[in-house]
Amino acid sequence: MVQATRLERNEAGIAAAVGILKQQFGDRFQTGASIREQHAHTTTYIETQSPDGVVFPESTAEVAEIVRICAAHKVPVIGFGIGSSLEGHVNAPAGGISVDFSRMDKVLAVHGADLDVVVQPGITREALNVHLRDSGLFFPIDPGANATIGGMAATRASGTNAVRYGTMKDNILSLEAVMPDGTVIRTGTRARKSSAGYDLTRLLIGSEGTLGLITEITLRLQGIPEAISSARCSFPTVDAACEAVIATIQYGIPVARIELLDAMSVRAVNLYAGLGLPETPMLLLEFHGSAAGVAEQTESFREIAADFGSTDYVATASPEERNKVWKARHDMYYASLQLRPGCKGLSTDICVPISNLATCVNRATEKAAEMGLMAPVVGHVGDGNFHMLVLMDMDDPAEIAKADEYVGWLNEMAIEMDGTCTGEHGIGQGKRPYLMKELGQAVDVMAAIKHAIDPDGIMNPGKIVPDMSI
Amino acid sequence: MVQATRLERNEAGIAAAVGILKQQFGDRFQTGASIREQHAHTTTYIETQSPDGVVFPESTAEVAEIVRICAAHKVPVIGFGIGSSLEGHVNAPAGGISVDFSRMDKVLAVHGADLDVVVQPGITREALNVHLRDSGLFFPIDPGANATIGGMAATRASGTNAVRYGTMKDNILSLEAVMPDGTVIRTGTRARKSSAGYDLTRLLIGSEGTLGLITEITLRLQGIPEAISSARCSFPTVDAACEAVIATIQYGIPVARIELLDAMSVRAVNLYAGLGLPETPMLLLEFHGSAAGVAEQTESFREIAADFGSTDYVATASPEERNKVWKARHDMYYASLQLRPGCKGLSTDICVPISNLATCVNRATEKAAEMGLMAPVVGHVGDGNFHMLVLMDMDDPAEIAKADEYVGWLNEMAIEMDGTCTGEHGIGQGKRPYLMKELGQAVDVMAAIKHAIDPDGIMNPGKIVPDMSI
Repeated sequence: MVQATRLERNEAGIAAAVGILKQQFGDRFQTGASIREQHAHTTTYIETQSPDGVVFPESTAEVAEIVRICAAHKVPVIGFGIGSSLEGHVNAPAGGISVDFSRMDKVLAVHGADLDVVVQPGITREALNVHLRDSGLFFPIDPGANATIGGMAATRASGTNAVRYGTMKDNILSLEAVMPDGTVIRTGTRARKSSAGYDLTRLLIGSEGTLGLITEITLRLQGIPEAISSARCSFPTVDAACEAVIATIQYGIPVARIELLDAMSVRAVNLYAGLGLPETPMLLLEFHGSAAGVAEQTESFREIAADFGSTDYVATASPEERNKVWKARHDMYYASLQLRPGCKGLSTDICVPISNLATCVNRATEKAAEMGLMAPVVGHVGDGNFHMLVLMDMDDPAEIAKADEYVGWLNEMAIEMDGTCTGEHGIGQGKRPYLMKELGQAVDVMAAIKHAIDPDGIMNPGKIVPDMSI
Repeated sequence: MVQATRLERNEAGIAAAVGILKQQFGDRFQTGASIREQHAHTTTYIETQSPDGVVFPESTAEVAEIVRICAAHKVPVIGFGIGSSLEGHVNAPAGGISVDFSRMDKVLAVHGADLDVVVQPGITREALNVHLRDSGLFFPIDPGANATIGGMAATRASGTNAVRYGTMKDNILSLEAVMPDGTVIRTGTRARKSSAGYDLTRLLIGSEGTLGLITEITLRLQGIPEAISSARCSFPTVDAACEAVIATIQYGIPVARIELLDAMSVRAVNLYAGLGLPETPMLLLEFHGSAAGVAEQTESFREIAADFGSTDYVATASPEERNKVWKARHDMYYASLQLRPGCKGLSTDICVPISNLATCVNRATEKAAEMGLMAPVVGHVGDGNFHMLVLMDMDDPAEIAKADEYVGWLNEMAIEMDGTCTGEHGIGQGKRPYLMKELGQAVDVMAAIKHAIDPDGIMNPGKIVPDMSI
């Protein structure tokens, strides 16, 4: 595990807040070591920093009460969805209270004619789509993990189909949030667009719980497409695959998903699911639309792929066939572990302009090989976003240090190539040094906003912006 | 003209800044009465409040220098694009310096493979599209007026094709801005998505120059569609037209434009362009896509429209036919003036959930009739956004007061119907009372951000947030 910065603890304040929360929330406030550790443990490579207690509110009013108690005693407040974040977002480097939203997981209203839904933050995206199944509507954002909608909003998540449907920032109409003084605000209405003042909705999306706790979310929905089909094809090189992606986007083919697996990822998928795919760079696509539209998209892409030397082109509208290969893609994390039994994976993400993508992927894989690291690539390449899953022996400090060095190099390369150190995972604790390299003095503006909204620095300290004392 | 609040002037500071700017910018700093008035005069119904001088910078460094001079003397700074804003955005209620971006109108880079372009703020959307013509790409946002990209960013503009391509917030990748202390920041990179820290890009979009001056914009572009066609049809009632719109959106037909004209607007268009259209509520659509896709969309919409009782359905792929009716729609402001010769128009905008649209339009037209006001309706109805153009005798104070009362009533109705007091025009001076009604305590958060970023309140004072003393 990579060590994380520790911040000073306000012991007296924490003790006082813990006492009050125990009294007010009874069994819904827990301080056992294992539950506390669970609420710091995420799929991250950063060491666990447990909160001092975990509270399970059931309403916005209760969240506001918790925040007011913590504010009065200057105690950190850390929002918790399902714990699938990757950059130490839910760690408690100064201790404090984890606010677990699992009991706030209701669908509050479905507005079918308006294609929107109002939900509490603790609902997962899969549970939401199960709820919506009979409405003919769905919520498209799919970051892989079955994350909560609140967590996805807080990290500005996206995933495989952002190329068609956008990211969380594009799919939220309005938020309700509890601010650091316990005030409850609403950032917008159900209108599909608005020019009414500063865009607090977008300010809170991606703020990782450092400005307030999101307690209600109004999401845009999409009609379930009449037809879905998928295609896959192999390419001799990453460059050829990326050229095909660029042409596909330029021709305006409205692909719903376009994913790159490098040769090593294809090998992992073969080991995991026995698919027998050619072990060269592969693109995996999904098309949504009318039956005729999907057929046209599929054919247009086939022609483009052929122009760039694709082989082994397979398209299918069969849900079973489609699911087989997409399931392998979704299980990529576990599939990759097959490449090196006993290892764990460090998933990192960068995003660059698509014209720099092939160069970036090639350099990244060459550098990993040079450093003796095994790191398959998967990418949401329609957006220029890709992940390296560095396979590590978590008991070998030298290897952890090497992986950490590699991730640093990767982030800096992305920034040099006019890209970002995180396309979708967020800054958390892990990417703070690179945020400064990427955006420079803009980070001072972020810090000024943080200080204005949360002057005591109680909201998820140690994340995104430079540390303030509590 | 409706009176606007006056703010206290810092006479000594203004005199000092004017002196320095004269010296440094020579002919590129102007203080003549008519040029100053021009820079306050917009297509608004709010009285003109002129700045004390107008400066024409040619680079970001010059903008930073201007802001530093004004900051040192606590003098207001007001950004100016082309003056097409509608809510008094460029007025100078405390005097100060208008920064005219007309000399910063360059395209700095076109990245064809990445579908993005880097521009200076003073370029107009039409000039940008002329520049892009041979690239096969275009910038889709069309607010009607030939506004500057900087102004469109500052007001979070949108317009007729937002239903397909989104608003300015969805089409900007990154901004460069001069902050109130003269610091130059960059809010993002050319990556198509990012989770790197607070979304300062979206915070500045729609901030109407109250947080900083936008000096460079990286825009997303779209491929020019292979085929474009348009359709129009008439409906017996506004309700029937709105039901057809809801069904069109729900079926996922990717319309590029879907506009409503009420019977009075159709009459105006007939008077203006002699089109002889049936004078009942009309929908006007545009479809973008492949030839087959556009044909399919057109046919699907025709069926939906028929289900809701449409008559006089006409579809065309001929550019001439298409342009004739769309030109009339674009000239709606001038067309409406035909309804009452000698009058002027007060254009106001609200946006509601689409399920409330028909009720909202009906109530709005009934209320106008009750009050003896003539006010045709045009709407970007795919988004639930519509405009009333109140036709007024600008020399009749009683009528102006009545129009003002009507606009207030309209904004409050939109807010009651879970909508917003402005879908695309912005808050400026005109809509400030309604912002508070719409978002309540969230406006305090906006004020805290404003105060943190612009503690002396020099950036476009009197707009959006409550007044601060300078």
